[in-house]
Amino acid sequence: MNANDGRVPLEWTDLDRRAVDTIRVLAMDAVEATGNGHPGTAMSLAPAAYLIFQRLMRYDPADPDWAGRDRFILSAGHTSLTLYIQLYYAGLLALDDIKQFRRWGSRTPGHPEYGHTPGVETTTGPLGQGIANAVGMAMAARRERGLFDPDAPPGSSPFDHRIFVIASDGDIEEGISHEACSLAGHQRLGNLIVLYDSNQISIEDDTDIAFSEDVGKRFEAYGWHVQTVEWRRPDGYVEDVQALWDAYQKAIAETDRPSLIILKTIIAWPAPNAQNTGKAHGAALGAEEVAATKRILGFDPNQTFQVEDDVLAHVRKVRERAARMRQEWDAQYKAWRSANPERASLLDRTRERRLPDGWSDRIPTFEYGKDVATRKASGVVLNAVAPALPELWGGSADLAESNNSTLAGEPSFIPPDRSTKEFTGDWYGRVLHFGVREHAMGAILNGIALHGGTRPFGATFLVFSDYMRPAVRLAALMKLPVIYIWTHDSIGLGEDGPTHQPVEHLASLRAIPGLEVVRPADANETAAAWQHILANPDGPKALALTRQNVPTFDRSEGTGFAPASETAKGGYILVDTPDEKMPDVILIATGSEVQLAVAAREELAKEGIAARVVSMPCVEWFDAQPESYKDLVLPSEVRARVCVEAGTAQPWYRFAGDAGRIVSLEHFGASADFKTLYAKFGLTKEAVVEAAKESIAAAARG
Amino acid sequence: MNANDGRVPLEWTDLDRRAVDTIRVLAMDAVEATGNGHPGTAMSLAPAAYLIFQRLMRYDPADPDWAGRDRFILSAGHTSLTLYIQLYYAGLLALDDIKQFRRWGSRTPGHPEYGHTPGVETTTGPLGQGIANAVGMAMAARRERGLFDPDAPPGSSPFDHRIFVIASDGDIEEGISHEACSLAGHQRLGNLIVLYDSNQISIEDDTDIAFSEDVGKRFEAYGWHVQTVEWRRPDGYVEDVQALWDAYQKAIAETDRPSLIILKTIIAWPAPNAQNTGKAHGAALGAEEVAATKRILGFDPNQTFQVEDDVLAHVRKVRERAARMRQEWDAQYKAWRSANPERASLLDRTRERRLPDGWSDRIPTFEYGKDVATRKASGVVLNAVAPALPELWGGSADLAESNNSTLAGEPSFIPPDRSTKEFTGDWYGRVLHFGVREHAMGAILNGIALHGGTRPFGATFLVFSDYMRPAVRLAALMKLPVIYIWTHDSIGLGEDGPTHQPVEHLASLRAIPGLEVVRPADANETAAAWQHILANPDGPKALALTRQNVPTFDRSEGTGFAPASETAKGGYILVDTPDEKMPDVILIATGSEVQLAVAAREELAKEGIAARVVSMPCVEWFDAQPESYKDLVLPSEVRARVCVEAGTAQPWYRFAGDAGRIVSLEHFGASADFKTLYAKFGLTKEAVVEAAKESIAAAARG
Repeated sequence: MNANDGRVPLEWTDLDRRAVDTIRVLAMDAVEATGNGHPGTAMSLAPAAYLIFQRLMRYDPADPDWAGRDRFILSAGHTSLTLYIQLYYAGLLALDDIKQFRRWGSRTPGHPEYGHTPGVETTTGPLGQGIANAVGMAMAARRERGLFDPDAPPGSSPFDHRIFVIASDGDIEEGISHEACSLAGHQRLGNLIVLYDSNQISIEDDTDIAFSEDVGKRFEAYGWHVQTVEWRRPDGYVEDVQALWDAYQKAIAETDRPSLIILKTIIAWPAPNAQNTGKAHGAALGAEEVAATKRILGFDPNQTFQVEDDVLAHVRKVRERAARMRQEWDAQYKAWRSANPERASLLDRTRERRLPDGWSDRIPTFEYGKDVATRKASGVVLNAVAPALPELWGGSADLAESNNSTLAGEPSFIPPDRSTKEFTGDWYGRVLHFGVREHAMGAILNGIALHGGTRPFGATFLVFSDYMRPAVRLAALMKLPVIYIWTHDSIGLGEDGPTHQPVEHLASLRAIPGLEVVRPADANETAAAWQHILANPDGPKALALTRQNVPTFDRSEGTGFAPASETAKGGYILVDTPDEKMPDVILIATGSEVQLAVAAREELAKEGIAARVVSMPCVEWFDAQPESYKDLVLPSEVRARVCVEAGTAQPWYRFAGDAGRIVSLEHFGASADFKTLYAKFGLTKEAVVEAAKESIAAAARG
Repeated sequence: MNANDGRVPLEWTDLDRRAVDTIRVLAMDAVEATGNGHPGTAMSLAPAAYLIFQRLMRYDPADPDWAGRDRFILSAGHTSLTLYIQLYYAGLLALDDIKQFRRWGSRTPGHPEYGHTPGVETTTGPLGQGIANAVGMAMAARRERGLFDPDAPPGSSPFDHRIFVIASDGDIEEGISHEACSLAGHQRLGNLIVLYDSNQISIEDDTDIAFSEDVGKRFEAYGWHVQTVEWRRPDGYVEDVQALWDAYQKAIAETDRPSLIILKTIIAWPAPNAQNTGKAHGAALGAEEVAATKRILGFDPNQTFQVEDDVLAHVRKVRERAARMRQEWDAQYKAWRSANPERASLLDRTRERRLPDGWSDRIPTFEYGKDVATRKASGVVLNAVAPALPELWGGSADLAESNNSTLAGEPSFIPPDRSTKEFTGDWYGRVLHFGVREHAMGAILNGIALHGGTRPFGATFLVFSDYMRPAVRLAALMKLPVIYIWTHDSIGLGEDGPTHQPVEHLASLRAIPGLEVVRPADANETAAAWQHILANPDGPKALALTRQNVPTFDRSEGTGFAPASETAKGGYILVDTPDEKMPDVILIATGSEVQLAVAAREELAKEGIAARVVSMPCVEWFDAQPESYKDLVLPSEVRARVCVEAGTAQPWYRFAGDAGRIVSLEHFGASADFKTLYAKFGLTKEAVVEAAKESIAAAARG
C-alpha cells in the first residue's frame, strides 16, 4: 500500500458491525418510546458516526472539556440520537438517558443543547447554524494557536486539532452555509472536515423536488477539497466503511483547504419499508417496521434498548484509547507550559474568562462639549482596551469603517497571500473580515466563543441585525459572550433611507430572552457600556450606536449630571429636577434621544415644571437592579412620564404606564438628512415638552 | 456572420458614448450636490445600464406598469443612480429629480423605493433581496403565463418577457443569493438574466480580503448558463460594449436556464484617483476629483448636471422604440383577449386584485366540540377556497405536511422531469417547493406579488420567521399582499425543544410597522382570519398557528360565545360576564391560550368574580377599529386585566395597564411534551385565575 494514498488500515470487526447495528436499534427504540423524533438519519449515519467517535476523533470521555480535543458539530441537529448514542458509547451518557429521549428534564432533548449535555459542543437544530459555528471554531483554533503556540511546526502543537461536522441536505440548502463555507474556503481552514450526509430525503420526501445543485462543484468553487463516497451503488447499497475511512484520511492529510466528504446514504437503512422515505426523517417508524428491521439486523424484535454486554465492553474501549491519547497530549502540554509560562497564564486567564488587572484603566474619558457619534466613541474605546486584552478580536461584515470596528495596526485574520492594499493578512491575525455575510458572522462569533476563551465581536448596521437574527437567538440561548456592534441605529443615519433605517429593531431585539441591548446616550456612556460588557462575559451583548454626532454631556461637579459609570445600572437619573424634589414628570430616553429629553427638561423648567431625565441605555441591566434602586429612579408615585426613543414604542409601555406618553416612531423612515427626518417625524424637544404636559394632565386626572 | 453565434449588430455611435459619459457626470454631480451617496458603481456601470435600458429591455416610459414589460431589478440598490439616470433618459424622471437625490420628498431616495418612483419594480438596498425578488418574478411570469396563455408556443405570448437584474459583489456574498439562485437553476428559469458587476471593490476596499470564490463555477453548479465579459484586460480597461451585447444575445437565446453574465469592471471608471477604491463605493469623490474626471471625459469642469441637447434628444428616442414595441404587443394582446375572454377577465380581476363573487361561500365552518389544531384548520380552509381563487398559490420551505400548506391535487411548480414520487411537476404548477430556504422564500414571495396579480403564500415554522425576516420587513415596507403561514407557534410544539419553540417572535413581528400578525384561537377564527386576509390585499399578513390541537369553541345561540366572524375586528368579546354587566376583570388572550382564559373565567365565576374573555387574534386589526368599539371591548374603567400569551409580554403592557397582569413566557422553552411545558412554565388556568385576583386587588388599590 502506498503510504501517500491516504489509505491507513482500518480495523473493523464483527463486533464493530454489531455495535453499529445496535445504534440503529437504539435510535428506533428511543423514538418509538417517546412517540416522536427523527430515527431515519440516526440509522443510516450509524456507521459514520461510529467511525468518527470510535476511531477518528481525539476526545476524552473522562474530561469532555479537554482543551486539546477535536470538536464534533452535529449541524443536522434533528438527528440528535446520532450524537447521543455515541456519547452513551463513550460513557458520557447512560442508557437511561437514551430512554428518556425528548422528555422533561432529560439530558437528551429533541435537539442537542450546549451546556445541557456533556459532549455537546453547540446547540443545533436551526439548519445551517452548526456548520457555520464549525467555521468559527476552526478560525478560533487558528487564532488561539497564534496566541499560545505560534511558532510550533504544523501538527506539533497541543493546540492543533480538528473540527468534525456532520451536515445534512438542509444545512447545505440554507444560505448561511453558503456564506460560512465560502469564507472557510477563503480562510483555507485545513482543520475543518465536513461530512455531508447526502441521503436525497428531506421532510418533503425526495430532495429532487427542490434541490438539484451540484454540491461538490459548488464547494470546489469555494476552494474546498471535495470527495464523494458512494454507498448507493448501481448494484445496491453498500456501507463501505473502508471507503469512508480512506476519504477521512485524505481529508486529514489535506491541511491547506477545508474538506467536504459527500456521503451518499439511504435514510433509515435497512428498515424494509421506511428506508428512503420522508416519513422516516421525522416520525416514529411504528412497532411493526421496528420489529421487521430488528429481524433484518438479527435483533430480538421483542426486546427494546437491547445492548449486548460484549458490544458495550467493546465500544467503551474508546475510553482506553482516549486515555492513551490524553497521556501523550498531557506530556506535550506540560512541556509547552514550562517553556511558555506567560502564554500559559494567558491561556488560564482566558479559559476562565478573567480580565487582567488594571485593564479598565485604559477606558478613555471623553471631554464634554464636543459632539461625538457613539460609533466613533466605541471605536476609540475598543482600540484603547485592545492592547490589554489580546483575547478580544473581531471585525465587520464589510462595513469596518462605518462601524468603527477595526483594531488599528493589528493584522487581518486571513492567509497572508490574501493581503490587500488596505489590510495586511496574517494566519494568526486579529481583524476579521466577514464580507457581506451577516448571518455567517453571527454563527461564526458563536463558534469562536464556544471554542475557547477569546472574546469575539462582530459589526454591521443595526437594521441588518435582521440578517443575523437566528444566530443571535442561539447566542442568547447558549449564553455566549459575543459582542455585537450595531451602528447606524435609527433614522439618524439619514439619506440611506428606510431600507437602512432601523425602526422596530430595538423592540424586536429586546424581546429576545437573555440578549442585552445597550444604546448609550453619549461618548462616555459608550465607554462605560464597553467596560460593563467586557467585565461580564455571561451572555451576548449588543451595542446600538449612532452614525450621527451626539453631544457629550458635561458631567463635571456642579452640573447636576450623573457620572457615566451609572450606565452599568442600565437606567439612572442623568439629571434631576432643579431642586432634586420629587419630579412633576420623568423623561426616560435612550441613545441619541437623551439629548431631546435634556433639552425638554430645560424648556419645562422655564415653565416651572420640574422634570427628571432618566437615561436608560440598557433595559435588561435596569431590570436586574434591586427594586429599591428602580423605585428610586422611577418612583411609582410619579405617574407622569414620557419615554423617548426613535423606534417603535412597544418596549416602553411598561415604563410609561397608564398616564405616560411615548414619543416614538411607528412607521418606516425616509431618505433625507437626519435633522429633517427628526423634525418631520416629530422626534423633537417640542414634542417631548408637549407629551410631558399631556402626561402631567393625565396623571392628575388619576 | 453566423446567425447562431448570438452576434447581432449593435449600433453604437459617438452620441451613445457621449450619453454614457453624461451618466457618469450626472452621477458624480448628484452625489457631490447632496454630499453623500454611491457614485462609483453608477459610473462604471453606465455603459451596461444604458445598453439594457436603451437597447435590450422592453418597456414603455409612457406606461411604466405595462403588463408586457420586461422587469429590471437593481439588486445593487445602493447604486440607485444607475437606475434613476436611466429613468431620466426614458423621461420617467426629470433632471430636477436627479438634482434632488437623497433629499426629503424627492423621487430619488438613497435606495430605490417601490411605489415611490415610477419604473422602480422593487425596493432594494438590503443586499441579496433584489436578485431573490427577481427569481420570484421569473417564477411568477411562468405561472401567470400558465394561467392566461398556457398553450402559446414559446416566445409567442404577450405574457412572455424577461427579468433583467444587476447584482453586485454584496448580493453574491449574501446567503439569500445562494438560496434563490440554487432554486432558480432548479426551476430552469430561462427568462432570468443577471448581470453580476464584478468590480472587486466593496466597502472594505478590495474584495480579496474576504471573497475569493469562483462565482461562475458556483452558478454552473446551480445549473445556470454562465458567461464572463472581461473589461479589465492585461492591456488596460476596455469598455467593450459589443462583447457585453453579444453576451446578452446569448443569454436571451438560452431559454432553458437562467443566465449569469459576469462583467469585470473598474469601479468609478475613469476617475483618475478614485477608480478601483473602496472610497468610491460609498462617498462623494470631492470637487477636485470630479473636475479631473470631467476633464478626462471632455466635459466642462465648471458646469454641473450638464446634459447636451443632442444627447437628451438621442436618449429620449427610447420612447419611440417603446411605442413601436408597444404597438406590436398591443395587437398581439388584443388578439389574445378576443380569443380568450374568460382568461382575459381573470387577468383583469387579478390585476385589480378583486375577488370573484361568492368566493367566500367556500370558507368552511368547523363543528364545535372537536379539538383541531389551527394549522390543520388552516389547511382545510386553504384547500376549500383554492378552486375559486386560481391566483392563490404557494408552498413551504420543506415543511409542507407540518405546515398544512399544500393545495391537494394541484401540480407542483417545477419542471415536469423533476417530479418525484410524492409530487407531480408541471411548468405551470401551483404548489411551490422552496427547499430549506426560508429567506429566499420570503424574497420570492415579494417578487411574485410585485410581478402581477397572483397571491402567494409561504410556510415554515414560526421560529424560522427569523430566517426570512429581512424579506418580511421589505414586504411590509412595500405593502405587498403576501401571506405567511407560520405554524408551531409556541412551546406548544413540544419535544423539538427551545431551538424550535418561538418565544419572542410574536412580539418581534408585531413590532414591524405594517405587518399584520394573526394568531387565531380556534378552527373557526382561523377560517375567519383567512377570509379577512384574502379580502384585504393591502399588505403582508402572517398567520401564527398551533401544532397542537385546541378546542373548537361552541359559538351557537345561547352559549354566549360570539361568532368567529368577529375575528376580523382583531379583538372581540369572545364571552362576556355571566350577566353581561361590567366585568370585574378582563382576560385578554390569543391563540392556544384563549382556552386558558375561557377556563379561568368559569373558575372565577365559581368564586363570584365576573370575567370577560377578549380574544385578540390580531392586535393590528384591533388597533384599526374605531375608538368607540375599542372602548366597548376594553372599557377604560375596567383596570383589572390579565393578558395571556405563550410568548414575551412586551406587546401586552399597553393592554394590561398599570393594574394589569401578564401571564407570559420570559425565557426560552424546553424539550418535553407540550402539556408538561405549559404546566412547568405556569401557563395554566390556575395562573390566570391567580393573576386575575391580583389584578383586581391592584385595581382596587387605585
